[in-house]
Amino acid sequence: MEKTSTDTDEFVAFAARLADAARGETLPRFRAGSTIVNKAQAGFDPVTEADREAERVQRLLISATFPDHGIVGEEFGAEKADAEWRWVLDPVDGTRAFVCGAASWATLIALERHQRPIIGVIDQPYMNERWIGARERTVFRRGEAQTVCKTSDVRELSLARVSTTDPRGTGYFSPEEADAFGAVASSARVARFSLDAYAYGLLALGELDLVIEAALQRHDFAALVPVIEGAGGVITNWRGQAPGEDDRGRIIAAATPELHEEALKLLRDV
Amino acid sequence: MEKTSTDTDEFVAFAARLADAARGETLPRFRAGSTIVNKAQAGFDPVTEADREAERVQRLLISATFPDHGIVGEEFGAEKADAEWRWVLDPVDGTRAFVCGAASWATLIALERHQRPIIGVIDQPYMNERWIGARERTVFRRGEAQTVCKTSDVRELSLARVSTTDPRGTGYFSPEEADAFGAVASSARVARFSLDAYAYGLLALGELDLVIEAALQRHDFAALVPVIEGAGGVITNWRGQAPGEDDRGRIIAAATPELHEEALKLLRDV
Repeated sequence: MEKTSTDTDEFVAFAARLADAARGETLPRFRAGSTIVNKAQAGFDPVTEADREAERVQRLLISATFPDHGIVGEEFGAEKADAEWRWVLDPVDGTRAFVCGAASWATLIALERHQRPIIGVIDQPYMNERWIGARERTVFRRGEAQTVCKTSDVRELSLARVSTTDPRGTGYFSPEEADAFGAVASSARVARFSLDAYAYGLLALGELDLVIEAALQRHDFAALVPVIEGAGGVITNWRGQAPGEDDRGRIIAAATPELHEEALKLLRDV
Repeated sequence: MEKTSTDTDEFVAFAARLADAARGETLPRFRAGSTIVNKAQAGFDPVTEADREAERVQRLLISATFPDHGIVGEEFGAEKADAEWRWVLDPVDGTRAFVCGAASWATLIALERHQRPIIGVIDQPYMNERWIGARERTVFRRGEAQTVCKTSDVRELSLARVSTTDPRGTGYFSPEEADAFGAVASSARVARFSLDAYAYGLLALGELDLVIEAALQRHDFAALVPVIEGAGGVITNWRGQAPGEDDRGRIIAAATPELHEEALKLLRDV
């Protein structure tokens, strides 16, 4: 099967349907009660439920609509992972944000062809915000309002707004990775944390200039690639290769090639 | 003048008017362009403009409505600071979030009597969310929906969701304060960063259990006190005294007295 632009239109519309379906499972469970922690003790865990139920309904939709397509999901693993077309799903990226009531968690959906991301969706239901990257173009929608995304034109690290989920060397980053990030952050204009995949949406909008992370899995980053590239940005691993081409899940996304190169110099040797 | 409940009703309604007025100046400047950084170089600085214009319009409203009241603002300093009633204003708390397009900045408004906060407002215009604490009761509104806030019933640090704006010892925290926060965070269930005053709103909603910060000024914390206390939480400095009773602006807010006491043990000696 050759990819045609008609296929892509159909797939983009279907990706939006998958995001809508996930909203029906995630949003009612967000800030669902003031006693989440104690309920967790009693075995009630809204974020895990949201993650599982959303992926379940997404898998049903995919199987019914495109029975030949593969699926790689965070919750229920891989199915026909070698298919020409496959969907990569992370129904709740940012489970910690979700658990803390912060609206920076997102539903991530990617469509890959021969394991290369073609379509990417970042969806934030509570804020009613959705980024869709496809065909080298990223569109941002908030409710009815729609804009075409363009990364900022920041080329120098000293002017850059940089973000990572956790700057400490005790979580996603190893101590060495945390030091390397610290070197980038201390040269930058401002640093923000704990935004998860939402940070890549802000990068696409031109509101952040640099996002640096580690320990991302395929379902964490596949959707980000078309969103960032479609907005004119650069996204690679810490060696400047395609994301996923190392075993540490290290990702750097930048507004411009010049900024990408300057930051990469501080990360390459880690 | 004795404080009556009629006064407080009038003041609460007026505080909401001040928040509305600030929205008119802040919201149009949020995510106003993809080239904020370069515009900043050319002298155009949306967040500073938002901060100043919002405080300007708030001061005009206060002077016109309550000419005897004092005003302490982040941008334009103090006016009749010794008055029985005074308004404490921070039109954009979280300027870094604002600059990065993250919707965790907030407008903070407090009314103090004899320098004790009586009414507190946390307003997030982009998300259309507003907390108002007064008369030992905190109400949260999002659009038309309204709920009465209650902090969680988490009593143990090991179950707590903890937040601070920047965990590193290079910013708000001194290295010693960062170590003390690190000790709290490493014993907690989960840690989130970069939420500024919005974190106290999540605490009031029962979505976070503990917020620990340093280097807060009066305009940063005055509004938080009625919001946290009105939701049943505890807010003090790191010695367990009223916020502001030290010279480091250290604040701890907790969902329950038990959790407050356990965390305080790790912070008291810094």
